[in-house]
Amino acid sequence: MKAVVYKEPFNVAVEEVDDPRVQDPTDVVIEVTTSAICGSDLHMYEGRTGAEPGIVFGHENMGTVREVGPGVASVREGDRVVLPFNVACGFCKNCLAGKTGFCLTVNEGFAGGAYGYVSMGPYTGGQAQYLRVPFADFNCLQLPKGDEHEDDFALLADIFPTGYHATELAQVSPGETVCVFGAGPVGLMAAYSSVLRGASRVFVVDRQPDRLRLAGRIGATPIDYTEGDAAEQIKEHTAGEGTDKGIDAVGYQATVREGEEQPAMVLNTLVEAVRPTGMLGVVGLYVPSDPGGPSESARKGELLFKIGRFFEKGLRMGTGQANVKAYNRHLRDLIIAGRATPSFVVSHRLPLDDAPDAYRRFDRREEGWTKVLLKPGMSDGHRTGDKAAA
Amino acid sequence: MKAVVYKEPFNVAVEEVDDPRVQDPTDVVIEVTTSAICGSDLHMYEGRTGAEPGIVFGHENMGTVREVGPGVASVREGDRVVLPFNVACGFCKNCLAGKTGFCLTVNEGFAGGAYGYVSMGPYTGGQAQYLRVPFADFNCLQLPKGDEHEDDFALLADIFPTGYHATELAQVSPGETVCVFGAGPVGLMAAYSSVLRGASRVFVVDRQPDRLRLAGRIGATPIDYTEGDAAEQIKEHTAGEGTDKGIDAVGYQATVREGEEQPAMVLNTLVEAVRPTGMLGVVGLYVPSDPGGPSESARKGELLFKIGRFFEKGLRMGTGQANVKAYNRHLRDLIIAGRATPSFVVSHRLPLDDAPDAYRRFDRREEGWTKVLLKPGMSDGHRTGDKAAA
Amino acid sequence: MKAVVYKEPFNVAVEEVDDPRVQDPTDVVIEVTTSAICGSDLHMYEGRTGAEPGIVFGHENMGTVREVGPGVASVREGDRVVLPFNVACGFCKNCLAGKTGFCLTVNEGFAGGAYGYVSMGPYTGGQAQYLRVPFADFNCLQLPKGDEHEDDFALLADIFPTGYHATELAQVSPGETVCVFGAGPVGLMAAYSSVLRGASRVFVVDRQPDRLRLAGRIGATPIDYTEGDAAEQIKEHTAGEGTDKGIDAVGYQATVREGEEQPAMVLNTLVEAVRPTGMLGVVGLYVPSDPGGPSESARKGELLFKIGRFFEKGLRMGTGQANVKAYNRHLRDLIIAGRATPSFVVSHRLPLDDAPDAYRRFDRREEGWTKVLLKPGMSDGHRTGDKAAA
Amino acid sequence: MKAVVYKEPFNVAVEEVDDPRVQDPTDVVIEVTTSAICGSDLHMYEGRTGAEPGIVFGHENMGTVREVGPGVASVREGDRVVLPFNVACGFCKNCLAGKTGFCLTVNEGFAGGAYGYVSMGPYTGGQAQYLRVPFADFNCLQLPKGDEHEDDFALLADIFPTGYHATELAQVSPGETVCVFGAGPVGLMAAYSSVLRGASRVFVVDRQPDRLRLAGRIGATPIDYTEGDAAEQIKEHTAGEGTDKGIDAVGYQATVREGEEQPAMVLNTLVEAVRPTGMLGVVGLYVPSDPGGPSESARKGELLFKIGRFFEKGLRMGTGQANVKAYNRHLRDLIIAGRATPSFVVSHRLPLDDAPDAYRRFDRREEGWTKVLLKPGMSDGHRTGDKAAA
Repeated sequence: MKAVVYKEPFNVAVEEVDDPRVQDPTDVVIEVTTSAICGSDLHMYEGRTGAEPGIVFGHENMGTVREVGPGVASVREGDRVVLPFNVACGFCKNCLAGKTGFCLTVNEGFAGGAYGYVSMGPYTGGQAQYLRVPFADFNCLQLPKGDEHEDDFALLADIFPTGYHATELAQVSPGETVCVFGAGPVGLMAAYSSVLRGASRVFVVDRQPDRLRLAGRIGATPIDYTEGDAAEQIKEHTAGEGTDKGIDAVGYQATVREGEEQPAMVLNTLVEAVRPTGMLGVVGLYVPSDPGGPSESARKGELLFKIGRFFEKGLRMGTGQANVKAYNRHLRDLIIAGRATPSFVVSHRLPLDDAPDAYRRFDRREEGWTKVLLKPGMSDGHRTGDKAAA
Repeated sequence: MKAVVYKEPFNVAVEEVDDPRVQDPTDVVIEVTTSAICGSDLHMYEGRTGAEPGIVFGHENMGTVREVGPGVASVREGDRVVLPFNVACGFCKNCLAGKTGFCLTVNEGFAGGAYGYVSMGPYTGGQAQYLRVPFADFNCLQLPKGDEHEDDFALLADIFPTGYHATELAQVSPGETVCVFGAGPVGLMAAYSSVLRGASRVFVVDRQPDRLRLAGRIGATPIDYTEGDAAEQIKEHTAGEGTDKGIDAVGYQATVREGEEQPAMVLNTLVEAVRPTGMLGVVGLYVPSDPGGPSESARKGELLFKIGRFFEKGLRMGTGQANVKAYNRHLRDLIIAGRATPSFVVSHRLPLDDAPDAYRRFDRREEGWTKVLLKPGMSDGHRTGDKAAA
Repeated sequence: MKAVVYKEPFNVAVEEVDDPRVQDPTDVVIEVTTSAICGSDLHMYEGRTGAEPGIVFGHENMGTVREVGPGVASVREGDRVVLPFNVACGFCKNCLAGKTGFCLTVNEGFAGGAYGYVSMGPYTGGQAQYLRVPFADFNCLQLPKGDEHEDDFALLADIFPTGYHATELAQVSPGETVCVFGAGPVGLMAAYSSVLRGASRVFVVDRQPDRLRLAGRIGATPIDYTEGDAAEQIKEHTAGEGTDKGIDAVGYQATVREGEEQPAMVLNTLVEAVRPTGMLGVVGLYVPSDPGGPSESARKGELLFKIGRFFEKGLRMGTGQANVKAYNRHLRDLIIAGRATPSFVVSHRLPLDDAPDAYRRFDRREEGWTKVLLKPGMSDGHRTGDKAAA
Repeated sequence: MKAVVYKEPFNVAVEEVDDPRVQDPTDVVIEVTTSAICGSDLHMYEGRTGAEPGIVFGHENMGTVREVGPGVASVREGDRVVLPFNVACGFCKNCLAGKTGFCLTVNEGFAGGAYGYVSMGPYTGGQAQYLRVPFADFNCLQLPKGDEHEDDFALLADIFPTGYHATELAQVSPGETVCVFGAGPVGLMAAYSSVLRGASRVFVVDRQPDRLRLAGRIGATPIDYTEGDAAEQIKEHTAGEGTDKGIDAVGYQATVREGEEQPAMVLNTLVEAVRPTGMLGVVGLYVPSDPGGPSESARKGELLFKIGRFFEKGLRMGTGQANVKAYNRHLRDLIIAGRATPSFVVSHRLPLDDAPDAYRRFDRREEGWTKVLLKPGMSDGHRTGDKAAA
């Protein structure tokens, strides 16, 4: 089958690889209909991880079931399903506690597994024609047959639940105010989730005009941090008080300006922007080892954190990758009911063969390249780059 | 009346000061029966805060009501009451949310007030014969008349609720494992609260043998961190996994050995000692400005925090001073029912006149000086320094 | 001053009564700008309670502060405030736990007090020119000065928080399905709150076409129970499953058809309409003594409840009058932010003198009389009966 | 193999039946080491259900894994495991929500399955030498090898988690007061769980002296309801207030005196015994159809419930069979740590052949027959009837 294969930094190719098959009785194999490119794929693409050449990318996957193992009870050939990016067993201590992002079974010696990602276990990615899904009863989320809501459902694999996870970590509740740092796809999903949960006011901080415009479209107040300290702007909007809750959808690659990383900037600005007794939901990535980091401590995953202010204000903070299974069912139901349309962030729908070019342009953050969906079954004439989204 | 007055670093005196009186219709004045010396009093005592000479110390207070303002509805002369160390109004946004440690009314321009503490508002301390209590209906916790459980009840002003708060921030629940860093009075109360909440195993980390012995007495496993890395010892006890929850009862004045402060050590060790998906409850003090800190960043309240590992493990952290009102009623009921006896930490019961000497020896951490209670009404012959407690 | 006084069953009059004044240092007196007539006022109006002639009605009150007691700390003359219908002290055990609807202080021998209501304490109602407010710091919710959102804010006294309380009792969370029995003002507020909290689908059961139309306008699916068993209709809409949560906004005066009461009907239908593991929020009134009830057990407040099915399905149920303080601040903020406009239920805005006629027609459930606001300061030419609302 | 087979009302026999085997790839077969007789087995034994002759009893099972299906990932031959009485799949909507007692997969057309129980699916019981366990990765709870804590672990299959479930439904938290109706094995486990969770005072209501003595042994206050109204006695112990929480561990077969059933008595007494704002946890069984009930409504599972008082007091109620998986891991860890020893309720340990006699005497509630464990591998000389337990 055809698949997107990592060759070397800044270079992926679409190549023939072996077809996946049912290995364990509890596996299924799906024909991929949509697989998205994620911002976290770019960490590998840029060579800032230990990813080896040959890895097939793709952890945001959906498709149609084509082969079913004999130990699978609830999934049938022809079912349309979306898969959480985190591979999980469903029966370990963490899965039972709903922490499926930290499964103790699927990735020996580590808490958590994923498709197509370095160090996340032996699970080939889904930017390909087919995908093997382990523990299929647990990992497959059933979708209505047909092709309705395809792009919305595809976002259930990662970014919609991840944005929602941020609001869950921050315990956003009706009537509260929220600030979200980062208006990339995950930040926008966090803002969107805040609105869905009944926040009274949501502020979204970024500097890219197209992304801030998208934030405005969903009812949030855009804050351009190049126009003045973000925490100060947020305080001005809230009578000096700051917001009830704050979300970090940026992580350690925070930049003040092009190319100048300040890994602790977002977290420490949040400490100022959120009012005493508040909570932070941190879904922007922080890593324990970053060989390309701007300082020795940053390279060890240590940042100068304003713990004194954090403590004085009695703040709380939750972090970590989303437990997609904890949210994807209810978010799916909001899509089906017409109450949520997360695909407003999708800018491009492209055939698999366009992946190398798409990676290049998405990595450069070209204007309007917000979110790219790869469609392995797409014929050439149907590609869209939805400029309207911007 | 007589009161413990701060004179200069390492020097307090018992002096005559003005009697307090009802100033607002909602005030009462109590005759103090017990007022404890707190580890946080030592920050002022050592001159490591901006406390000015003349301040009366004492935020852990209980006594008998002697004067009642005309706007007080539920408190009567003769009532025996204990006061949360945090002064709170009961009707601001934060008090209504149960966050009485961050009251917006009682300390203009700041979230939170306290008796006898620098920057915590105009509230004279209770290491004295009398004490004015504002918003008395809200702040007074009623106690059974008489003198039973006096020492246990006195600990309801601060350290028992503060230890319990740590377990609440960490959401300790039945069957879980917990590690507590620091076996001072607050750490012991956190370990004790963990046991009361049904933890299966509790580890207490310190290096002072008398304190570790106390930890053992309440069913916890003592960990002496001078005998090897604390996180490693805890992992050995938990089949390599680490504990479900962790508590920091030390704060920024963590020392590796006598006099050598490493402010980030406890937090970063907790990040290793707690298993993925765990939670930290941080009640050890961190301050936004510490002029005596060991590095420039420490002086600004910034610490090199292992955020990369914290995120990778999906940890959560809650911090801040205890909202005593949220817990003191139920903890009182456990004392009355005979199910909790927090006074096991009390080492000394002394008349007010002994305060200068007691401060000196407590500050030196002399062996066996775990917790000192001042008794303004005590006659000379009744002082006790309960060595048995060690 | 002028006030709405209960004379006898089916008869109220607007009469001169004594002006209220500050009695306790913690009181304020407000000039009432809006006071709503509540469905529960009709219980007294119809003579189905022990209410004595002379009582001044009105527990849904807002206005401007005119007199301030010396023990009040945060409320000032001229402040615009709305009052929870439940009078509460703010410092008893229940108030501290957020259960302000069950205050142990304000109504000797009973848990809970209210303005202008039989057995709910000595608090004169607010369908009058002035109102005394006890424990003013605690009971007053501050509003922006001016007259913006007047009708929305007035609903913060009772029905908006009461509807919201139902969703809290049922723990309605994003993506869930909810059925609401009763499309009166409280039922509509419960449906509206469900939408605000992110429910995927909301079903509203009633038989009055104007009310069902209002339900449709806020995005709910109307269910006319005269067209077939309500539980069956709801199951058809949910693939046979039933909803995740259910709300009873009817109570013991449930009628199958005009005049024929079946007090257990709504609860037992909910047991069928909600799926296993679901929760019920019950805010429709049930009373321990109903001399006019249709059977002996109903007269004692006992109903034949399908506990067998309830248990088999593992259902949970929360009941009781709303703790308005627990919600009114956040709901106010949603109104100010323009995210909530509960006044869509208001059908009439009338001067105080119209009260006798308004009671008569509201009691008859005349078409279009959904919710009546009395405006003591209104001059004659400004009354509105907003038929558009229907 | 040998198994306990139901023959007719009041008659079971130990007979040879077919050995169970791995049917699905995700099954295991265990050799049973302990299987308990449950009070709910008596419903079938007495002929008060639709159970057909031939059914093998036993839903409280533990043992050693002897055969492992090829789709099982985490369970190995020789593992010592205990099984929740509820059979569950681990991947349906309810299992994912932690509601494993209401699994939608294992019992077509019904929410919930169990071993050896009428209408609970095709799962043979474990009062036998061997037992087939479906969805083994999900259903097996691993235990330390050997035979330590055998009796404590056996109670993890049902009664310890069921008692704990009651405290979870009632949200028992530290310092609260609790009343438990019923001092049978489940009621005692509910009282024991309340103590473990930090309740300040626990009252246990029954009339059998041996059971009340056991309640006293774990620190609860026994209330003999034959000596006066139970609610009144509880109020006397709580200064007239009632308890914070209440637990029904009796259900519809409540009797006032020998043989006289009053199915609503316990629930309605709880409504009086629990204070306003309280919660009830109901784990005593109520059934939707009881052909032997004492009245027509009782036969339909409808009871005259004091809903008026329930509502006036703002009470909440949770019901239903326990989701054992939600609790058994943490309870196991309390047993291993030596903090819980639920086997104090066990009165008899008997070989399988003694089952017919044991059923007869347990059904007659002979004094001292609190809880019977069957040991299929026990040789004759080792049977114990631990009178000391009483």
